[in-house]
Amino acid sequence: MHKLPVGVLGASGYAGRELCALIEGHPSLELAFASAHGQRGQTLRVGKREVTFTGADEAPLGDAALVFSALPHGASLEWVEKARAAGAKAVDLSSDLRIGNGRSDVPYGLTELRRNQVVGADLVANPGCYPTAILLALAPLVSSGLLEEQSTISVSAASGVTGAGFTPRPDLLFAEISEDFRAYGVGNAHRHGAEMRAMLGELGGDNDLIFTPHLLPVARGILATIVVRLKAELKSPLAPWLELFSNEPFIEISATTPSLRDVVRRNTVKISAVKAENARQPTLIITSAIDNLTKGAAGQALQNANLMLGLDETAGLPA
Amino acid sequence: MHKLPVGVLGASGYAGRELCALIEGHPSLELAFASAHGQRGQTLRVGKREVTFTGADEAPLGDAALVFSALPHGASLEWVEKARAAGAKAVDLSSDLRIGNGRSDVPYGLTELRRNQVVGADLVANPGCYPTAILLALAPLVSSGLLEEQSTISVSAASGVTGAGFTPRPDLLFAEISEDFRAYGVGNAHRHGAEMRAMLGELGGDNDLIFTPHLLPVARGILATIVVRLKAELKSPLAPWLELFSNEPFIEISATTPSLRDVVRRNTVKISAVKAENARQPTLIITSAIDNLTKGAAGQALQNANLMLGLDETAGLPA
Amino acid sequence: MHKLPVGVLGASGYAGRELCALIEGHPSLELAFASAHGQRGQTLRVGKREVTFTGADEAPLGDAALVFSALPHGASLEWVEKARAAGAKAVDLSSDLRIGNGRSDVPYGLTELRRNQVVGADLVANPGCYPTAILLALAPLVSSGLLEEQSTISVSAASGVTGAGFTPRPDLLFAEISEDFRAYGVGNAHRHGAEMRAMLGELGGDNDLIFTPHLLPVARGILATIVVRLKAELKSPLAPWLELFSNEPFIEISATTPSLRDVVRRNTVKISAVKAENARQPTLIITSAIDNLTKGAAGQALQNANLMLGLDETAGLPA
Amino acid sequence: MHKLPVGVLGASGYAGRELCALIEGHPSLELAFASAHGQRGQTLRVGKREVTFTGADEAPLGDAALVFSALPHGASLEWVEKARAAGAKAVDLSSDLRIGNGRSDVPYGLTELRRNQVVGADLVANPGCYPTAILLALAPLVSSGLLEEQSTISVSAASGVTGAGFTPRPDLLFAEISEDFRAYGVGNAHRHGAEMRAMLGELGGDNDLIFTPHLLPVARGILATIVVRLKAELKSPLAPWLELFSNEPFIEISATTPSLRDVVRRNTVKISAVKAENARQPTLIITSAIDNLTKGAAGQALQNANLMLGLDETAGLPA
Repeated sequence: MHKLPVGVLGASGYAGRELCALIEGHPSLELAFASAHGQRGQTLRVGKREVTFTGADEAPLGDAALVFSALPHGASLEWVEKARAAGAKAVDLSSDLRIGNGRSDVPYGLTELRRNQVVGADLVANPGCYPTAILLALAPLVSSGLLEEQSTISVSAASGVTGAGFTPRPDLLFAEISEDFRAYGVGNAHRHGAEMRAMLGELGGDNDLIFTPHLLPVARGILATIVVRLKAELKSPLAPWLELFSNEPFIEISATTPSLRDVVRRNTVKISAVKAENARQPTLIITSAIDNLTKGAAGQALQNANLMLGLDETAGLPA
Repeated sequence: MHKLPVGVLGASGYAGRELCALIEGHPSLELAFASAHGQRGQTLRVGKREVTFTGADEAPLGDAALVFSALPHGASLEWVEKARAAGAKAVDLSSDLRIGNGRSDVPYGLTELRRNQVVGADLVANPGCYPTAILLALAPLVSSGLLEEQSTISVSAASGVTGAGFTPRPDLLFAEISEDFRAYGVGNAHRHGAEMRAMLGELGGDNDLIFTPHLLPVARGILATIVVRLKAELKSPLAPWLELFSNEPFIEISATTPSLRDVVRRNTVKISAVKAENARQPTLIITSAIDNLTKGAAGQALQNANLMLGLDETAGLPA
Repeated sequence: MHKLPVGVLGASGYAGRELCALIEGHPSLELAFASAHGQRGQTLRVGKREVTFTGADEAPLGDAALVFSALPHGASLEWVEKARAAGAKAVDLSSDLRIGNGRSDVPYGLTELRRNQVVGADLVANPGCYPTAILLALAPLVSSGLLEEQSTISVSAASGVTGAGFTPRPDLLFAEISEDFRAYGVGNAHRHGAEMRAMLGELGGDNDLIFTPHLLPVARGILATIVVRLKAELKSPLAPWLELFSNEPFIEISATTPSLRDVVRRNTVKISAVKAENARQPTLIITSAIDNLTKGAAGQALQNANLMLGLDETAGLPA
Repeated sequence: MHKLPVGVLGASGYAGRELCALIEGHPSLELAFASAHGQRGQTLRVGKREVTFTGADEAPLGDAALVFSALPHGASLEWVEKARAAGAKAVDLSSDLRIGNGRSDVPYGLTELRRNQVVGADLVANPGCYPTAILLALAPLVSSGLLEEQSTISVSAASGVTGAGFTPRPDLLFAEISEDFRAYGVGNAHRHGAEMRAMLGELGGDNDLIFTPHLLPVARGILATIVVRLKAELKSPLAPWLELFSNEPFIEISATTPSLRDVVRRNTVKISAVKAENARQPTLIITSAIDNLTKGAAGQALQNANLMLGLDETAGLPA
């Protein structure tokens, strides 16, 4: 069977390597090139074969039906534009083109909320990992106007260290992370906050989103724990999600609290919601888990690419 | 120098062993006995010497100036009463006598908030680990009336697995905990919630406390991340803590976010607070960290015992 | 397509669950039953569906073409015999029927060394995890008579904690294993030693095998590091393995030292060998890695089952 | 009480920071300076106070009674000589002056074996971490001539990642180390091999030492597992160690196998030895554990400094 050639820019990082592995197992795609600045000529084991990194400037962009850019924020936009100019479609995994970061004309590839804009698109901005877990958890409440007006949405989220990328930093060494846990970017100023606030605004929200990320001593996975005040008690705490996401192949609504291991290496977000006891104001506690490298990056990028290329949305994705 | 004899009931668990180790290094105390149901006759290495476990019913309660009970909830009260009847003072590390659990006449040993009641007392209920981290973080705001009226206090807290005790449970095996992270007791019904709500009520609060604990793949430590809405912006976000806790030997107020490794094996709570950007309502994000076995259990128990016995509050405690 | 029904006895442990998952993904097999003593009626998530545990005594043994027993040592033999009496073939993952444990008439399912006996067999004793990694690493040297006569084979091997099974033991709790490492069964008396010595004898060896296992703070994987003295230097250190195992789908011979993550979740043994510098006597250092639950247990059991049932040896197995 | 001023060169790495912490708690020493190339002006929290890093070229070498160099191999010698020229005694933690690395006139500070040379010395080469654990385990057998002539000593040793230093390397990131285990430097060519072979030669050995180090997913600790062939069975397997090390404050001989947590944060080596069952040739399996940063680096350096300065050997050291 003929396979569509796709390329990966920035293929040596965690998201880039995950993309190469997913493409290798995809029934209708094949890897045309994989670039890695400074590692050109080195090889990456992908399944049973080896891929040799090229420089980005040597990559045959025009040979690809679609190019994934897993380049760093700031460096990505230039190469996405080159790929587009060479005739390839593009999915940008960086924040350069995301909503809330200055551009809003590019479809925001939170697939389940923006599927109509993604199908057949030439260019998609892939969401951040935290926003994927958190916006899918909040969308049913916000878009239905169930939250108390102007109430605070408190989000405490924790990510495995691959979320910080493959860059060698002393604070990410094993001996620094093991047996530790801490919040970072405290004060609501994390880059992903703007992305989430912009999207919540589009969904009709008027709430203060307070977002505190934490760094976990695990390799992969994000868990978000969210507290919201409601206008009124819900009859069934899971109803808003079951209604909005009833047929979604990659969303799992559950009465049991998600754990990282429920979602690791799957392109799935698992969401639960429980009514708070011992509270006078109707309050919901929502938990949401994803694999930051799959549904939070490479998997969702492939989900979007499938729709952009007219393929089955679930092709090549571990649900 | 003559040392005061003290005993430990329930000495084979994590808190009990920590107590034995702290007593061994204490300048004015010595271990009179250590009981462990079902392990009588077995030995525990404490520093350079070995301690042999007795059964609780063989323990010479009356020989001790003070008895620590690290027995399980429900089983502890009976033995605390026996120790008292035998003439020993007692610190109960279980929840049996804690505020919010049915008794309120026993001093609640959150030392920094109840020092006057603890000094010279015969019996003290030692606080839970989560309440220690969270109540010390909230007390300055609540007692000064700084929180928005009837606003929600959102607490997301994560604990190392020693918080679940030394009982063999399949879900606490290494292979189940490693590389995982999850919330538990979601819905605001955790035992420690009642303890915290009762104490916040005593401090004058009228807020909904929403508390979600999580299980971390680390051995020791608790980090709590707390979001509160204020009546008005604070001029300096750390001011309430600096005022209330200015001379406390075991409270560290810091502009930098605490990390578990800042506090592990210390009897210290480290607290930070940051104003939330991008919020219309004045909002504060507070982080608070302790070692669940030290300040969250055995260390605070010893801090209380020091005051009950007329010793220096900091004696034998790692700050 | 019609699928062959197979059953799993002892399905709630680590090896049993791994078997259920592999069977779920197998193109020609389907799960007829899964038994778990004391958990009857409980469910196990396997891929997209749920399996309900039965008691072993309720399991329809005769409905299965083949039964896997992942029951504990000592308890397994009785049920394997019942499965055989009911007309099913059987693979016993326990040590009850293994070479060196009292029986030698049952084919020992170290597939690559005993393939002829396994093909079409009705009953196979699946090897232990350590013996799988170690015997495949030693076989080419022993069967070719390359080792110095009566020399010592020193084996230091380390296993992830799933090797100790899913039984709750205090010493396997996360807080006991994390940040620790230790040898166990030191003195060459581990059960797997007899199994290996018996098999090495069959291969023609006359050496002292000294085997020291260690417990690693990881969930899965075994690495064995083996030192042997040779009669003479080898021209190429990898030659013996390349010759004996040239066409094996599940053996990877490599000039680079294997790492656990090279083999985790794969039914592959990765073996490397390096000549020792700075030694007067020709000496080889061999390293061998497997996933203890895949090639070391459930994967090899399925590899054997494939051959017993006339299926492709690699069917349903992750290489 | 007057304290002796000592300095630390290379104070920002793991060994350097450990030195600063030990000096801070030492009853007779105080920190005169701490240098860290490229981090001058930054501060390090040591106990209750903060130390500001200077550049090595700004360090007042002559103000110190003794200078510890924790500088990298190759860079250390120059600064040790400058410290000596300025009138300070020096302990070099690098390999630059160690036995087997080209120099043999400088006392080799494996304290228990070279105490006479260390007492009062002006300059000492501090041993490597692996050699400390392994040579103390082997010395009683080698110096008493108990090993089979020309037999192989097989050493498999595993170290926590702080042994690789604080340099940011991609392969030492948490996500690369967690859940992994591998040998490195396989082939007997590790730098520490020459150091150990030279010292074994001085002790009278004629054996092949085969040394394979491994990288553990833990922060601290080394465990060595050693297999040796003996001329004859020992009546008591621990006797050689009990005889040679009977009064050593930092050597613990035990019938129970050492675990990393037995020795972490202590300046102790714990050694056990067990006769191998099922072997025709008398064979011993020895296990030896240290904390690589304490007895394996900073602690032993301080132990040597104590003797060089005429202080009590155990002062300031956690046994």
